[in-house]
Amino acid sequence: MSLATAQSARGPAKRRFRDTQIEMAHGAGGKASRRLIDGLIAPHFANPVLDAMADAARLPFGGATLATTADGFVVKPLQFPGGSIGELAVNGTLNDLAVSGAKPLALMATFILEAGLDVAVLEREIAAMATAAGRAGVPIVGGDTKVVEHGMADGMYVSTFGIGTVDARVRLDPESIRPGDRVLLSGPIGDHGITILLARGELALEADLRSDTRSVWPYVEALLELCAADIRWMRDPTRGGVATALNELIDGSPYGIALFEEALPVNDMVRGACELLGLDVLHIANEGQFLAVVAPGAEDAALATLRAMPGGERATCIGEVRTEPRARVLGVSSFGGTRVIDMLVGDPLPRIC
Amino acid sequence: MSLATAQSARGPAKRRFRDTQIEMAHGAGGKASRRLIDGLIAPHFANPVLDAMADAARLPFGGATLATTADGFVVKPLQFPGGSIGELAVNGTLNDLAVSGAKPLALMATFILEAGLDVAVLEREIAAMATAAGRAGVPIVGGDTKVVEHGMADGMYVSTFGIGTVDARVRLDPESIRPGDRVLLSGPIGDHGITILLARGELALEADLRSDTRSVWPYVEALLELCAADIRWMRDPTRGGVATALNELIDGSPYGIALFEEALPVNDMVRGACELLGLDVLHIANEGQFLAVVAPGAEDAALATLRAMPGGERATCIGEVRTEPRARVLGVSSFGGTRVIDMLVGDPLPRIC
Repeated sequence: MSLATAQSARGPAKRRFRDTQIEMAHGAGGKASRRLIDGLIAPHFANPVLDAMADAARLPFGGATLATTADGFVVKPLQFPGGSIGELAVNGTLNDLAVSGAKPLALMATFILEAGLDVAVLEREIAAMATAAGRAGVPIVGGDTKVVEHGMADGMYVSTFGIGTVDARVRLDPESIRPGDRVLLSGPIGDHGITILLARGELALEADLRSDTRSVWPYVEALLELCAADIRWMRDPTRGGVATALNELIDGSPYGIALFEEALPVNDMVRGACELLGLDVLHIANEGQFLAVVAPGAEDAALATLRAMPGGERATCIGEVRTEPRARVLGVSSFGGTRVIDMLVGDPLPRIC
Repeated sequence: MSLATAQSARGPAKRRFRDTQIEMAHGAGGKASRRLIDGLIAPHFANPVLDAMADAARLPFGGATLATTADGFVVKPLQFPGGSIGELAVNGTLNDLAVSGAKPLALMATFILEAGLDVAVLEREIAAMATAAGRAGVPIVGGDTKVVEHGMADGMYVSTFGIGTVDARVRLDPESIRPGDRVLLSGPIGDHGITILLARGELALEADLRSDTRSVWPYVEALLELCAADIRWMRDPTRGGVATALNELIDGSPYGIALFEEALPVNDMVRGACELLGLDVLHIANEGQFLAVVAPGAEDAALATLRAMPGGERATCIGEVRTEPRARVLGVSSFGGTRVIDMLVGDPLPRIC
């Protein structure tokens, strides 16, 4: 969760943060993270750019708009099926820019390394970052390295910073959503979170599952080419999952979101693991998907465009904006059942990214 | 040391990094840091912007030049006389922009917090960041928070990212230095490093000393107004100190630097502590000073300008560019003694920033 995404310009006045100790849940991207950011960090840093609700900050510059984003990565283990901390750091930052409608210009990275870290591990991650950045055609233009004592950084932590230029056709604004708008999802959810959980080896579960980590910019770019003016809002549902992202969108809104639960693309192994572990797949982190709310008339062409791209075949409409329930996400099923879908509470999967 | 500052475009081909484990010295900003960055990180990330030797990356954009910089902070203890990790994170990033001739536009920050951190400590640092940024008139526009298990982040680590616009009059280039150019220093050195060392309480030494942490932008801005075209190069001598910064400047150059050791402004307590501990003050980190190499004719006015500003009274000329010794920094004394002044080797003061 970025500092800014946690804030809703429309929400009620935020309550002061009253917890006395930091807990894992404060980093999980759900309600506790939101309380920390809204109640403690944002009031100190208050300024118009931060207060605008977005995945990246928007800075007017020289007739254009720059987007900048900052992300910390502490995923454990450092390497997992489908990716690793370095790849995640690059793709996560590219994705924050992408869902802000920004074409990436450059990345920077800081490394906090612990003494005793195997240099081969570091080099593997540096190479993974270079490969991910190269694939996206974005240079890594600088950074910093620090070393702390053995045991003080669990191998390594990476922070990445991205800068991009916002597509001039883009008008993303959570307040622009209207009843009838369609909620699109780029592909199956839960793969990243469940992959990390299984990679830790603490559960007697095995599955042939891979993180979905990837840059979503090519898909976003295709949508911008197709229908930039019809896109109301985008978000990559990382920590806290789709449920948290949609709740953040709708918090303080006069409208609600109906989520078609049966339409959610979920891989069988992810669904099975969630059932076994009592997890809601809507709260599981993703690292290669995005949500887009589009005007009703844009749905068919948008889905056709995404589905025509490799890796976009399972893009689908998972919900719509409705006049009610106000400021809520309501799960609906084809036989008429409903449930309120809330943000993530607690931290079932610590250090997921 | 930024990823980019460690590189010299003029230097000989860099040797591959052959160490097998990360050690504290790799984060100390001296020779080991340089080997890590030149030998392992930079070859993977190679691109023209990174390869340009600078404290901040320069990105042409919309007819102007943006400067971006990223810094990690792991200082121990989190708070010390004169400052704290939050203040250091803001000022350190502003200073990297400043010595690149860039007026700061915006900052972002990522926080890696450990479970169990006292929220009052976090709030103190958030407030310190807000105060330092506010003093500089620069907004903190976004960021990220992550939480790791207790014991895994020694309280908190901060990474900051800064973006600024390079003053159009600036022509900073290490290759532009010429024999006769003067090396100016903004004020006394060693205060930050020795303050941190004493604040750890591991030594039976006490002194009424404070870190020099501050933004150097006001001083740099005054020099730019005065003589932008006469400034060849600037650097804030943080980790590795003045000795490392000047060695990085001169590495691969056809010229050398004579350092007038007796001219160095050093507070008595810092000098005393260095003598007791066998440290060279030229290797001690500073967080509120900068070096500037200027054309000979600009020296007097530059020093007069700095000295007229509060906090600039002790600005002085500490050396000059000479035709020899080639690519070396040579300490010279008034009675004719000389010594080669090398980069920092090892890490006498870990986690200084």
